[in-house]
Amino acid sequence: MNHVIGIHDLGPSGVRQVLDQAADWKAQSPGEHLKGAVLGMVFFNPSLRTRTSFELAMLRGGGHAIVLEVGAGTWKLESREGVIMDGDKTEHLKEAIPVLCRYVDLLAVRSFSDGTDEDLDHTEPVLEAIRRYATVPVISMEGAREHPCQGLADLLTMRENFGDLKGLPVTLTWAPHIKPLPKAVPNSFLLSAITAGCQVRLAHPPGFELHESVLAQAAALAAETGATLKTTQDQAAALAGSAVIYPKAWGPTVAGAELSQASWCPTIAHLNGMRADAILMHCLPVRRDLEVSSELLDSPHSRVVDEAENRFHVQRVLLDRAYHKKENSL
Amino acid sequence: MNHVIGIHDLGPSGVRQVLDQAADWKAQSPGEHLKGAVLGMVFFNPSLRTRTSFELAMLRGGGHAIVLEVGAGTWKLESREGVIMDGDKTEHLKEAIPVLCRYVDLLAVRSFSDGTDEDLDHTEPVLEAIRRYATVPVISMEGAREHPCQGLADLLTMRENFGDLKGLPVTLTWAPHIKPLPKAVPNSFLLSAITAGCQVRLAHPPGFELHESVLAQAAALAAETGATLKTTQDQAAALAGSAVIYPKAWGPTVAGAELSQASWCPTIAHLNGMRADAILMHCLPVRRDLEVSSELLDSPHSRVVDEAENRFHVQRVLLDRAYHKKENSL
Amino acid sequence: MNHVIGIHDLGPSGVRQVLDQAADWKAQSPGEHLKGAVLGMVFFNPSLRTRTSFELAMLRGGGHAIVLEVGAGTWKLESREGVIMDGDKTEHLKEAIPVLCRYVDLLAVRSFSDGTDEDLDHTEPVLEAIRRYATVPVISMEGAREHPCQGLADLLTMRENFGDLKGLPVTLTWAPHIKPLPKAVPNSFLLSAITAGCQVRLAHPPGFELHESVLAQAAALAAETGATLKTTQDQAAALAGSAVIYPKAWGPTVAGAELSQASWCPTIAHLNGMRADAILMHCLPVRRDLEVSSELLDSPHSRVVDEAENRFHVQRVLLDRAYHKKENSL
Repeated sequence: MNHVIGIHDLGPSGVRQVLDQAADWKAQSPGEHLKGAVLGMVFFNPSLRTRTSFELAMLRGGGHAIVLEVGAGTWKLESREGVIMDGDKTEHLKEAIPVLCRYVDLLAVRSFSDGTDEDLDHTEPVLEAIRRYATVPVISMEGAREHPCQGLADLLTMRENFGDLKGLPVTLTWAPHIKPLPKAVPNSFLLSAITAGCQVRLAHPPGFELHESVLAQAAALAAETGATLKTTQDQAAALAGSAVIYPKAWGPTVAGAELSQASWCPTIAHLNGMRADAILMHCLPVRRDLEVSSELLDSPHSRVVDEAENRFHVQRVLLDRAYHKKENSL
Repeated sequence: MNHVIGIHDLGPSGVRQVLDQAADWKAQSPGEHLKGAVLGMVFFNPSLRTRTSFELAMLRGGGHAIVLEVGAGTWKLESREGVIMDGDKTEHLKEAIPVLCRYVDLLAVRSFSDGTDEDLDHTEPVLEAIRRYATVPVISMEGAREHPCQGLADLLTMRENFGDLKGLPVTLTWAPHIKPLPKAVPNSFLLSAITAGCQVRLAHPPGFELHESVLAQAAALAAETGATLKTTQDQAAALAGSAVIYPKAWGPTVAGAELSQASWCPTIAHLNGMRADAILMHCLPVRRDLEVSSELLDSPHSRVVDEAENRFHVQRVLLDRAYHKKENSL
Repeated sequence: MNHVIGIHDLGPSGVRQVLDQAADWKAQSPGEHLKGAVLGMVFFNPSLRTRTSFELAMLRGGGHAIVLEVGAGTWKLESREGVIMDGDKTEHLKEAIPVLCRYVDLLAVRSFSDGTDEDLDHTEPVLEAIRRYATVPVISMEGAREHPCQGLADLLTMRENFGDLKGLPVTLTWAPHIKPLPKAVPNSFLLSAITAGCQVRLAHPPGFELHESVLAQAAALAAETGATLKTTQDQAAALAGSAVIYPKAWGPTVAGAELSQASWCPTIAHLNGMRADAILMHCLPVRRDLEVSSELLDSPHSRVVDEAENRFHVQRVLLDRAYHKKENSL
């Protein structure tokens, strides 16, 4: 079944195929390729772009989406096996997912980290539980560990600006925030860029390391794709000669590490030393003048709106691939 | 107008017709039988299966649903007549329902008991107020007294397993919980099984009696359909020779009656003495190892996912019957 | 671009065209005039009629709507420029709106006053910020200053009852409430009736004046359309000879002005002195026996449900006008 929960579900050649198809369909819309399909969207967390771009992909393709917000319009769901359910969770995924799979053709699920156990987060616990119970394809709308659709949209955006991504120097840099954010987006940008063969620079202050399981996966992938990864605490060194600046806030690995390090907030001045055609990328939502300066966001270097648009283009390819392997729901 | 607020709106022959049609359409989908129809879904309480299966029934039939969550995305609604509206309710059903009926072709409404007045609950106050104000057909998505769509899905599931339901021995048994749940599901299973002519056994600890209005309705129906009803406080005696175990938590009639009577939680051992082909049924959501043991839920005896699927099949028949009597909305 | 944020976006001749088309399409439905269109609906505040009537207008026209609830299912949005975003707002409209405009063909937005700064409210700050950022047409679903779709539905309702509106005597009268409500509805009724050339009487107790910017706009419009506006604190004098009584609660301009002036709550007795064919209008939701008496709401003089239905009829014209100037989204 064509689940997409992590980038490893596609692999380098799958990623390439998705990007090729997305670019083709961006140039020439495929029409009603999802005619009759119904996508069930399960949100454990809020959404604007993801909600809209997935529902739109179904509608533009001639299908439909049903949106469920867990804990708001629906029950709270348990994902752990073997627990006595006498707490605040009313239903187990072990029932909810098989039931939804009887109704809909495809599932898309968003379930962030709750910030309590980073090692657990990096097993992608909710999405992987859903994979076990599901009888229709499941696409992640952002998990605790990865946000593969964002990673794919990022790659499409870089391709549109720079063509072939092999060897392209790109910088993922930590950014300040008022609270410790999850790591799914930086994890996915890193893994995607490595999958595409980029020369990746990762810059963050001490105490903000990405998880070892992601770094290990990146190293293994790099050996396969010819990508490189260099980690540094020197943001300027990372940016030197880079074609992409991708600032992103995420939480510390060391308790008490300072979130408000304003010198890490990219401004126009940060473009000095980067390539003349350098672009700013960000997954959005972005807090202006906290994570990224307004002047940079409002400059011609910014591609953040293109990136958001590209969510639509890559997702409709994933939905298409998933649906056309499986059409026998109700 | 083809309202379905309680099982009495269908009667034994109506129930039979709905089940026949649902079984036919489960074998052979009816296509776009709801082309152009719009269903307004009004939720006073949360939902997962009901929300999804109703919206899906509209989409698969070529129609659409509009989902309104009262008190979340919409105003809180008053259902009592003759009150000065100076509290937290912003709008009266007397305006809201006629307005919605100008817009949509069909209404579906969920309004649980609020747990404060059981006698009032058993008049189905919100749904019956809506019946008075509505100018398009109204289908209950669970009221304070009945959950007719669940009862119909339960009957379809039993038919699929046992064929003719006349005289089939089935047991509705109380189950433990952490809070006093409403009685709409046990009421509807009881009334549906009696409508279908089953030999019904009802088991619960003292202090958990069903409401006299339901028991009186069941007795009157039984006289018509040849069903029988035996009530007992001995769960094992009820289960002996039974083809169905239907455990369900509900609240006490006597203040302080104990909710956590773990011996009432069905396990595999409870199947001893039942028929060899006995099945486990439950409306879901179910709290594992509190209401029903995991081993029983995960055993081949469980039909809980089939039951949930059958919600879709019976509901699209109800929607079809309602719509094709009334097509003159906007 | 065909934005409709205030009545000035249409002007007197635009209003006339919308009403003519709405009346035609009410008599004879236009079919799939919105085939392929997707409307993004952004709610900063709750809704029942607006939500349903807009989504229905899209569905009946062959299009679709995607519904986003800001702060519930989506992030909280910042509308002010130049602020450091270190508070509770996660995203700026400056990103969110351009992104949504890449996805959908049309936007509809609801953003009430928050009750803290009336002068700011009367600049329509959120909707006007969205106008600046949007690349697709934007329709107001009620702002801080105006609710143009309600005003248009009100005019259509008056036309259906009285034909030509030039010189028609109509009374907008303040009504009691438990809390200070926003002024968008009374502002829009006033501006719409003036646009249509009515003889408008505005009655309210001292301390409940409408904002000077609205009164100035009304005066300028009246000079153009031949309308008249007379303001009084004598409700009975205003109603004398009037064809329409439009009661509406709104908040005071003077701190401490009394909200619970029960003599201002219209009853059947208030019709004495009005025209024999006088009608009651209200935008809904209405609190019975607080803002308007039940006997009047339940009398044959009431047109409140017609008014709500007319929301649908005027909105599908606005959607049509907006869409057919702009069809190049994804």
